[in-house]
Amino acid sequence: MTRLHVPVSLRWSDLDAYAHVNNVEMFRLLEDARITAFWTHPDAGEDAWPTAVLETGPHATSHTLVARQEIEYLRPLGFTRTPVRVELWIGHLGGASLEVCYEVHDGAARFERTGPTSGGAPYAKAATTIVVVDAATGSPRRISEAERAAWEPFVEEPLTFRRRR
Amino acid sequence: MTRLHVPVSLRWSDLDAYAHVNNVEMFRLLEDARITAFWTHPDAGEDAWPTAVLETGPHATSHTLVARQEIEYLRPLGFTRTPVRVELWIGHLGGASLEVCYEVHDGAARFERTGPTSGGAPYAKAATTIVVVDAATGSPRRISEAERAAWEPFVEEPLTFRRRR
Amino acid sequence: MTRLHVPVSLRWSDLDAYAHVNNVEMFRLLEDARITAFWTHPDAGEDAWPTAVLETGPHATSHTLVARQEIEYLRPLGFTRTPVRVELWIGHLGGASLEVCYEVHDGAARFERTGPTSGGAPYAKAATTIVVVDAATGSPRRISEAERAAWEPFVEEPLTFRRRR
Amino acid sequence: MTRLHVPVSLRWSDLDAYAHVNNVEMFRLLEDARITAFWTHPDAGEDAWPTAVLETGPHATSHTLVARQEIEYLRPLGFTRTPVRVELWIGHLGGASLEVCYEVHDGAARFERTGPTSGGAPYAKAATTIVVVDAATGSPRRISEAERAAWEPFVEEPLTFRRRR
Repeated sequence: MTRLHVPVSLRWSDLDAYAHVNNVEMFRLLEDARITAFWTHPDAGEDAWPTAVLETGPHATSHTLVARQEIEYLRPLGFTRTPVRVELWIGHLGGASLEVCYEVHDGAARFERTGPTSGGAPYAKAATTIVVVDAATGSPRRISEAERAAWEPFVEEPLTFRRRR
Repeated sequence: MTRLHVPVSLRWSDLDAYAHVNNVEMFRLLEDARITAFWTHPDAGEDAWPTAVLETGPHATSHTLVARQEIEYLRPLGFTRTPVRVELWIGHLGGASLEVCYEVHDGAARFERTGPTSGGAPYAKAATTIVVVDAATGSPRRISEAERAAWEPFVEEPLTFRRRR
Repeated sequence: MTRLHVPVSLRWSDLDAYAHVNNVEMFRLLEDARITAFWTHPDAGEDAWPTAVLETGPHATSHTLVARQEIEYLRPLGFTRTPVRVELWIGHLGGASLEVCYEVHDGAARFERTGPTSGGAPYAKAATTIVVVDAATGSPRRISEAERAAWEPFVEEPLTFRRRR
Repeated sequence: MTRLHVPVSLRWSDLDAYAHVNNVEMFRLLEDARITAFWTHPDAGEDAWPTAVLETGPHATSHTLVARQEIEYLRPLGFTRTPVRVELWIGHLGGASLEVCYEVHDGAARFERTGPTSGGAPYAKAATTIVVVDAATGSPRRISEAERAAWEPFVEEPLTFRRRR
């Protein structure tokens, strides 16, 4: 199973009064990883992520909406200067939407961008459903062939959440 | 069904580039409503919320952890100076944990703090599972009789999430 | 001296590990007060602030840039459910720019929108220089006669900062 | 003139509706650089910054307060995946306080931690006055000899702000 491994730097302000990353800020880290992994970046050069094919900027012809999110916080994450490793994959690739799955793990000074899980107990497990929208009409639009080709190598079993009631 | 109705003011910075409340900031609004509704406030006076019995501050003997969250974003929420109305209730009251359920609705200049839903289509539906923890040991502790008495009037059917796969 | 008195609600997440409003978040409170006081709001109705004449939204023909800011933190501000009172006035009204001055004071359940200072020692004193920009060209544009007429009643002596070296 | 060169990663959420780093978030970047440069980090190892001597954590015997800040925004900063380079130095080293000066510049894939300015026109120039406080009493305490020794190599001329009225 091949995942994307995205480094995300913590900020001091991510911590709450218990000196752990706040529950809301954890979603901020996931957002940051998702944008790194799926959106084009003007300064990416040959260093682009294989899945980074979603257009950005004021002239983009499409954008995305977040339709749902779910998270389980498994261990408290304290401050570290080493960027954490957000492991991402696609749990479901639909007609106009995709489910991004994540696990937050310890990082390292340098690590490969893709590969199997780094293992160990994650700090958090989460999933986000994203809908791709036509910017002109505001309606969902089909995922293009180019997008599908870029994303299919990272489609794997979706996360199982254990604390759902 | 009696819910708590908590006013929460938006901030301009809650908006993203599409001029809607950002998906992460929506959790910030829910956090704010939850803290208003469940935590004691030194300046509350006779105006205290009936459910606001959780201790706060550096000398509190217990605190809380967020164990899981889930949300469905149903309609985009644009900026308004009128505080939104976050309707809260308790979907499950366990031994050491509770599930807080929320719907985000339009507010009004003034509204009652408790009552049935204000109706209409919510902007978002969400749930948060909170664990009450002994501050000295860091382990879950039983919900006290006083807490249970304050919270039981607001226990109702938990939210149903429609977009779960 | 007539100031604008803008209520701003705190959020729990404004606090840092010392349980005081974080130094960065204080600028967020000021931004919120400034936007309330100077920008038009679609839901303002007859309740509009007298100075709220700057256009907003994707079709606005002008927008603003922040050119400089300065702040002195005078007393720590702890959490309160009562919105704080941000007192604003205009310390300088130039050709294409204005300097907004602020003091952050205790609020009250209700207070008038304009008047002299509420008195007492402020939590913070600050100033922001704003440049009005033509949205089409990105260049500074002259403050219009209507803007000038709305703002002139609130031009007073600028703040004096005591801790400048 | 030797400055500290601190890499700071941007986040997508730092941007406002104009796709530039928001004026408040710029202070967040500066806070992050300051904490990297001046506070001890449990995971720093032999990789510690030479100026990182301020204690952190719940058992620290001292902490710091921000007394004032000042900033000039010189050029809009758009999103980049390359961390920006925050250049820091000490503009004044007093008995119980210090003034940290900053310029925000373009970063690079890797750069040295200390050295002269990287040159070019900065995005922003800013200064923060920090007071060192005894945690037990809450009163300012003298900067220790060890702190002074760590910081003196980075004392240089303070920033000049050109837009002050």
